[in-house]
Amino acid sequence: MAKEGADMTEETQYMIDTNVCKEPVEHVESSGDAKEMRAVVLAGFGGLNKLRVTKKAMPEPQGGEVKIRVKACGLNFLDLMVRQGTIDNPPKPPIVPGFECSGIVESVGENTTGFEVSDRVMAFVNYNAWAEVVCTPVDFVYKMPEEMTFAEAAAFSLNFVAAYMMLFEVANLREGMSVLVHSAGGGVGQAVAQLCSTVPNVTVFGIASCFKHAAIRDSVTHLFDRNVDYMQEVKKISPEGVDIVLDCLCGDNTGKGLTLLRPLGTYILYGASNMVTGETKSFFSFAKSWWQVEKVNPIKLYEENKVIAGFSLLNLLFKHRKCSLVKSVMDKLLCLYDQKKIKPVVDSLWALEEVKEAMQRIHDRGNIGKLILDVEKSPTPLMASDSTETSEAGEEEEEPEGDNDSKERMPFIH
Amino acid sequence: MAKEGADMTEETQYMIDTNVCKEPVEHVESSGDAKEMRAVVLAGFGGLNKLRVTKKAMPEPQGGEVKIRVKACGLNFLDLMVRQGTIDNPPKPPIVPGFECSGIVESVGENTTGFEVSDRVMAFVNYNAWAEVVCTPVDFVYKMPEEMTFAEAAAFSLNFVAAYMMLFEVANLREGMSVLVHSAGGGVGQAVAQLCSTVPNVTVFGIASCFKHAAIRDSVTHLFDRNVDYMQEVKKISPEGVDIVLDCLCGDNTGKGLTLLRPLGTYILYGASNMVTGETKSFFSFAKSWWQVEKVNPIKLYEENKVIAGFSLLNLLFKHRKCSLVKSVMDKLLCLYDQKKIKPVVDSLWALEEVKEAMQRIHDRGNIGKLILDVEKSPTPLMASDSTETSEAGEEEEEPEGDNDSKERMPFIH
Repeated sequence: MAKEGADMTEETQYMIDTNVCKEPVEHVESSGDAKEMRAVVLAGFGGLNKLRVTKKAMPEPQGGEVKIRVKACGLNFLDLMVRQGTIDNPPKPPIVPGFECSGIVESVGENTTGFEVSDRVMAFVNYNAWAEVVCTPVDFVYKMPEEMTFAEAAAFSLNFVAAYMMLFEVANLREGMSVLVHSAGGGVGQAVAQLCSTVPNVTVFGIASCFKHAAIRDSVTHLFDRNVDYMQEVKKISPEGVDIVLDCLCGDNTGKGLTLLRPLGTYILYGASNMVTGETKSFFSFAKSWWQVEKVNPIKLYEENKVIAGFSLLNLLFKHRKCSLVKSVMDKLLCLYDQKKIKPVVDSLWALEEVKEAMQRIHDRGNIGKLILDVEKSPTPLMASDSTETSEAGEEEEEPEGDNDSKERMPFIH
Repeated sequence: MAKEGADMTEETQYMIDTNVCKEPVEHVESSGDAKEMRAVVLAGFGGLNKLRVTKKAMPEPQGGEVKIRVKACGLNFLDLMVRQGTIDNPPKPPIVPGFECSGIVESVGENTTGFEVSDRVMAFVNYNAWAEVVCTPVDFVYKMPEEMTFAEAAAFSLNFVAAYMMLFEVANLREGMSVLVHSAGGGVGQAVAQLCSTVPNVTVFGIASCFKHAAIRDSVTHLFDRNVDYMQEVKKISPEGVDIVLDCLCGDNTGKGLTLLRPLGTYILYGASNMVTGETKSFFSFAKSWWQVEKVNPIKLYEENKVIAGFSLLNLLFKHRKCSLVKSVMDKLLCLYDQKKIKPVVDSLWALEEVKEAMQRIHDRGNIGKLILDVEKSPTPLMASDSTETSEAGEEEEEPEGDNDSKERMPFIH
């Protein structure tokens, strides 16, 4: 088993490295220079040991870009998939991961309007967010409300924009409807629950691990353990099914979700975290998921009056360039924030150097709300009981780092 | 080939007759009684020769039902598929086809409120519409505007409700969007074009047979011949694709439609007329279409930010019982009609006795707008050149009836 794991890792690596890299990230190892910065670098696809904090050349803004002194970064399940290389067209490592951050504008490139030095901002970044400084096109940058903390801002952008667009752009959430959300305790799940509460009389069915129930019970109408037969439970309460299913798991939840839909209901797949089954073997899980996921017959949708959708905010931003639509959504969300109708839930803050522990926590689905990398935070000293084991046996260990049980090492849990 | 056709018909008949019939329609042959009425009866699934006009016992309204003296009935492509038995769970023949009509309320059943004798109404009926009298639950009956003719009313309900719900309930048509509609000259196609014109700055790409172009050119923004590579033509004009694709054909148009979608765009399958390839052989076409239609991988939808939906108004009404939703849509449509923003397009009026010719016309896609069965109309005498051939060679001919070239016999073309 251990042998197999190692073999697969090598082969996976080979398969991914053959992909052409569009924007290679230069990996500069140097020191002392004022034009350097700390960043989390992913040396290659694989386990936690592929991650390290190192010095890199500081980027300078191109025309149309904003340079941000980063205060906090969001850590998402997708970052795990990036680490493993289980995403579509991954860039060639070494790369700096991370898709969102908050911070202070340090400078702006030529022909860049709308932002000034010292503005407090949150931003989407097409990789490179987990660093002390990032540059990103002005279309992906938004001003932070005064009362919002940097940690909140880093927890806000991706989760709330995704939740809002799925509920109100892809589906059409209205009064009296019902929503089923998987991973109800996660960042998107909590954003979905809050946004549903802005519409009268919406029933939210949440699915989450048992140990989160006490913490999130008030955020949803009905809460189920992820290990029970949720279909049966939902049908007991709502025999006709639900109007919207939000699924970040994929796998057999797709078929179940479609079955649970009421006529004219919408199933939205917005992630495939079931593809991540272990530390490193997941390219094959990915391929398997792709082929084994239940394909949908359009004639069946016709007969049943059902809708199936896919939603990837990152593709929408960086591939499909729907920046002005996302901006208009962000405006609505900031309005709801000002009205105190929504508020990002921060699970915990981690130093850049603690990224492995943070990743392990999200891998183990231990978080309630968002994990944040706090760039200015110093790492919490390791405890004697910490070990180097990860949850996948047989992984090659390059460094004696990593922390299997992140619950033992919770530097700053909100 | 002729042999094969006959064999298939027999086998099809066998396969369909084994289905359990939920509501058998009694076939009464008698005469003179005041409690009888004329109706179109489908004796069995198959070709045009399975249809005849005969006398039947007049229905009486049950509790919650309205009895309507029918003036006009709508003829839809779906009625062809019913005739051939190529629908999901067809009832057991003999049956009276027809799903919509207009007329005058003759009586109401017990506990039936909202309608009075002599009200001018339009109604959905779960079969049995093609008769002098129908009874249908009050939830499916709507009062006609004063200035609406019976022919218009019979052309209104199904097409406009379907078009409206697809554009505004399933998709979310808004200012500046683009819509591609197949069969732009048909009843739904013309309703879609009119409803799109109620939203500012909507681009409509219509696909229709060349000979219809002169008649419908003004109703759409761009018009393409159904025999050209419409994908290439659409991409020339709109390289990013379109926001909404409405497809009543199925087959390879599903894949093409999905490819043509812009990010966050919605493909809606609302019919499968490509399943109807001839007069009688289509159960196998149906099975073939079901299995051969391109299944959709949800992960692909995720990566591309796309939505695929199916819409069947009849299932929504009679199976899913979304009556109050449809009622609210009808209210909005009647408001648009009163404002003269929409107006049903009637292709032609036919006597009940001319149902075969009417069906042949819709089979040949010769219509522009809706075909109407006018219950009070007398049939146009056959011309000497009329023949009994239908478009499918080898069909068993029980009666020397039918008219292959309905264009030679156009009793009342609007």
